[in-house]
Amino acid sequence: MTSAAIPDIVISRLPVYLRALTRMLGDGQEVTSSKDLGEHLGISSAQIRKDLSHFGEFGKQGTGYQIRFLVDQLRRILKVEKEWDVALVGAGAIGHALAHYNGFRDRGFRISMIFDKDPSKIGTLINGFEVQNVSRLSDVIPQRGITLAMLAVPAEAAQAVANELIKAGVRGILSYAPINISVPEGIHVQQIDPVVHLQRITYYV
Amino acid sequence: MTSAAIPDIVISRLPVYLRALTRMLGDGQEVTSSKDLGEHLGISSAQIRKDLSHFGEFGKQGTGYQIRFLVDQLRRILKVEKEWDVALVGAGAIGHALAHYNGFRDRGFRISMIFDKDPSKIGTLINGFEVQNVSRLSDVIPQRGITLAMLAVPAEAAQAVANELIKAGVRGILSYAPINISVPEGIHVQQIDPVVHLQRITYYV
Repeated sequence: MTSAAIPDIVISRLPVYLRALTRMLGDGQEVTSSKDLGEHLGISSAQIRKDLSHFGEFGKQGTGYQIRFLVDQLRRILKVEKEWDVALVGAGAIGHALAHYNGFRDRGFRISMIFDKDPSKIGTLINGFEVQNVSRLSDVIPQRGITLAMLAVPAEAAQAVANELIKAGVRGILSYAPINISVPEGIHVQQIDPVVHLQRITYYV
Repeated sequence: MTSAAIPDIVISRLPVYLRALTRMLGDGQEVTSSKDLGEHLGISSAQIRKDLSHFGEFGKQGTGYQIRFLVDQLRRILKVEKEWDVALVGAGAIGHALAHYNGFRDRGFRISMIFDKDPSKIGTLINGFEVQNVSRLSDVIPQRGITLAMLAVPAEAAQAVANELIKAGVRGILSYAPINISVPEGIHVQQIDPVVHLQRITYYV
């Protein structure tokens, strides 16, 4: 398997391609080209062809890509042909927004449990899910075999909760806490911090 | 000016360095090294030295970086020595979370107006801000000279709202809508889509 050799920057673009292609499919489009997709995304067609070429031959010169086929392949590559159960830790404002977010649907993920440590939140329902005591995390997550989590706790708590999640079997964490989290080899962390993105804008503005 | 030649991937790491260094400073640390910072962030020290070398000489071999100085320089490079006023469009769950987010403080940004099109939301207060009718956007944003916006509207509305923002003078948009937005040359867009990040995790898990 050569997948370890594929640059992470290429991997980071695949979900964006998948999202755009899925939308084209939803709009009734059946075929696209790297030029068409590139114009839509503001990425060069050469870049798209090069990125996809890491994974095989997805289109024929001159006839473009069958969108349905490409979508299926990207879903397979990103391992989202099935739905992943995701544990959400933190039932504050960000946790609430995530629990109500309908953008997960049909894209490979569903939140299946919510934890918080605040007694006033534990036992309440958010979008149909009962908020559980975070102290139960180490029991419940292994029971359900959950390997993905979203972290929406304050910066100060993030590392400790991440450690617990990993001990419970979680191997991938999407963190909204504005702090770097240290994890052992083999655990994958992505971070969402609006300020990091805003600063990346102001550099250019 | 050679700034156009600096790879975007380098720029994308500067806010992460700034965040970590600011936290070190808050913890009372005064000096760091590329090794120390790299271990903290899971990035090689060579990478950090190389990234920073694009912008000048920030540390002396063997004595490390004066954190306060490096923080000031990074804030200047990213143009966050001052605070930017940001318009928020969309007062749904994500907009609410952003309006209440206290991670903006001291990092260069403050939300200074909130818009929505829902009559039941217009006129209500969110964290002290009155939600304004989105139809007023084209008047209010130029009046205040605002050039940055956050977009927390449904995918279907995102492009149209982005067009209006740009017409009103906005030059940078952080979008939470799970759709690609097309913008003219010179306008900078960053997107936050949790599914894109989750799929980047599942590829590796």
